[in-house]
Amino acid sequence: MLTGTARSGAGGGPEVAVIGAGPIGLAVAWRCALAGAAVTGYDPTPGSGAGAVAAGMVAPVAEAIFGERELTGLLAASASRWPAFAAELTAATGADLGYRTDGTLVVGLTADDLTEARRLWTYQRELGLPVTPLRPTGLRECEPALATRVRGGALLPTDHQVDPRRLTAALRRAAERAGVRFVPTAVTDLAGLRADVTVVAAGCGTAALTGLPVRPVKGQILRLRAPAGTAPAIRYVVRGLADGEPVYLVPRRDGEVVVGATVEERSDTEVTAGAVQRLLRAATDLVPELAEYRLVEATAGLRPGTPDNAPILGRLAGRSGPLVAAGHHRHGIALTPVTADLIAELALTGRADPLLDPFTPDRFAPSPPGPAGPDGTEVSGR
Amino acid sequence: MLTGTARSGAGGGPEVAVIGAGPIGLAVAWRCALAGAAVTGYDPTPGSGAGAVAAGMVAPVAEAIFGERELTGLLAASASRWPAFAAELTAATGADLGYRTDGTLVVGLTADDLTEARRLWTYQRELGLPVTPLRPTGLRECEPALATRVRGGALLPTDHQVDPRRLTAALRRAAERAGVRFVPTAVTDLAGLRADVTVVAAGCGTAALTGLPVRPVKGQILRLRAPAGTAPAIRYVVRGLADGEPVYLVPRRDGEVVVGATVEERSDTEVTAGAVQRLLRAATDLVPELAEYRLVEATAGLRPGTPDNAPILGRLAGRSGPLVAAGHHRHGIALTPVTADLIAELALTGRADPLLDPFTPDRFAPSPPGPAGPDGTEVSGR
Repeated sequence: MLTGTARSGAGGGPEVAVIGAGPIGLAVAWRCALAGAAVTGYDPTPGSGAGAVAAGMVAPVAEAIFGERELTGLLAASASRWPAFAAELTAATGADLGYRTDGTLVVGLTADDLTEARRLWTYQRELGLPVTPLRPTGLRECEPALATRVRGGALLPTDHQVDPRRLTAALRRAAERAGVRFVPTAVTDLAGLRADVTVVAAGCGTAALTGLPVRPVKGQILRLRAPAGTAPAIRYVVRGLADGEPVYLVPRRDGEVVVGATVEERSDTEVTAGAVQRLLRAATDLVPELAEYRLVEATAGLRPGTPDNAPILGRLAGRSGPLVAAGHHRHGIALTPVTADLIAELALTGRADPLLDPFTPDRFAPSPPGPAGPDGTEVSGR
Repeated sequence: MLTGTARSGAGGGPEVAVIGAGPIGLAVAWRCALAGAAVTGYDPTPGSGAGAVAAGMVAPVAEAIFGERELTGLLAASASRWPAFAAELTAATGADLGYRTDGTLVVGLTADDLTEARRLWTYQRELGLPVTPLRPTGLRECEPALATRVRGGALLPTDHQVDPRRLTAALRRAAERAGVRFVPTAVTDLAGLRADVTVVAAGCGTAALTGLPVRPVKGQILRLRAPAGTAPAIRYVVRGLADGEPVYLVPRRDGEVVVGATVEERSDTEVTAGAVQRLLRAATDLVPELAEYRLVEATAGLRPGTPDNAPILGRLAGRSGPLVAAGHHRHGIALTPVTADLIAELALTGRADPLLDPFTPDRFAPSPPGPAGPDGTEVSGR
């Protein structure tokens, strides 16, 4: 049951405040509004966070990596919700989300790259995930534009993609149509909000609002565009290692190819010569035709990272605290549907889906209020 | 003596029309106005041509290449005028042109690159030009940021640089202060102009106005910037071959480093992934520290090329035709002072300096009016 239902929306539902209007915040707001809540979204610059530069891979298999079983499960749960989520969003707005289900090719340029890639997909197959290793001829039948040097790869038919900019714009429109009110101001103190439920979906800004260990992880990413009048070079998302450099190529239907992304423990958003060079080198080594593509954008964003690379989903500090939906790191777009559904359910009914258990804020000890000894007990002021 | 002096400017001088407000057109206009002419400059988008993206090397030695002796002489003549020209322009406007006389290092990354570079500087020394080959230790004393892989190089102390954007802005200001009037319209027909002398300095647009064989030669060029708080990586202009890829690095005092440039027989101005990658690869191979620099601009411009790579300077089609100052290809900035001085002299006194002799428009036969046989005589209509 909800706490604090004394205040209620026009429709009789609770008042929900959502801090942050990136894809996660927008989707939570939309879902809450559809369920009858009176939702207010707060963001001084809606849609300007990590989602604005993300590639938009919905890749439950390629992102299933060693040591992240719980996250792998959540990614799979979200991927299974994506088709219906996309259909519902398109029905609500008429927007083309650029949602593509062509699948993903994982490739290795050199023998070493292929060995490394195979090591990972062997693990993924052990988890029961759909990975189809391909012979070189089969790989080239799928994607003739791959360089002849590419040694081998596998098809991941259930790893899809969506265009995050289209997604964000559509979520904003859907939320507004469902009655969400947006306030273009920055929230700096949760105590100042008057709402029955507050959801913090503020990406990197979540740390300052909650004390949770969300840190910026810089990513540089490029957008290429096919020369006028030419057919797109590739149809599949191509993820690969090129002489040890990880790179992904995400082809949109309109000829755009997103090339990403660096992972840097920095909080600036500068585009650097070295990163651009490495991304372009890896991209053109895998698909030489991309050298003729226009370089139309080079940007950097800050992913909200957490100590265990998994998102923070749930209620902060006991039953009366705000809800948190943040720290999605490299998985914000992929995890948008499951996050929106489960956080909206938690906000409106108080029920926490068991899927959320591994991701509660509780797993991170709050910063102690004063100096603490090695055993964590306070050493002064007692 | 001037022809057609019936019309004259307010100061009693002749009326001069200059088509094109790039560095060449602006400098010609400025010089003519200083000499008492009433000058009108025509350009729909002043300063938007090749000069806006040029690196600004004033490199009479590095640009002295096989088979271009006349051009080498003109470059030397212009380089010798540069110090006084820059001083006069700064005195007239107060502008800092970014004119630097630190010199240029020519380097080779691999043994093959060095062999190729040495072949050229041996020729340059045979011409009596100042080239000082350096031992690897001497090279690194000059420029410690060079990669340890760089095999060797030479110092060209008389090859300097200027910032073309600052130059163009200063020339515009100086011209206006000297009384030049600018009309922001495109001239499409010289016959419509009422002036005693017309100077066509329209870069690639010169072909359409005159029938001369000036073609666009695309160049892609990058601008990097040092991270905040760091000292500039390099002091000298560095020109080199890096695994066969020619590249130059032009350091400004404000931390900008210009990296250029491709030479492509194309007329589009798209920035392509392959060109950016090759330029960045060559640049960071020569000076690894540049990988940390911000990539702040990637642009493409169209150089006005000619069949023999030399500019077209002089009177078109006999004594009554317009003057031409165009086709400077890769040398527009370097050749600005000598072009301005000699074309202004020709415009105002009718005297053609002997330096102009190899560059007259006459060397290109005009397009025949009808179909011609193999011997050049008309085969029909007689």
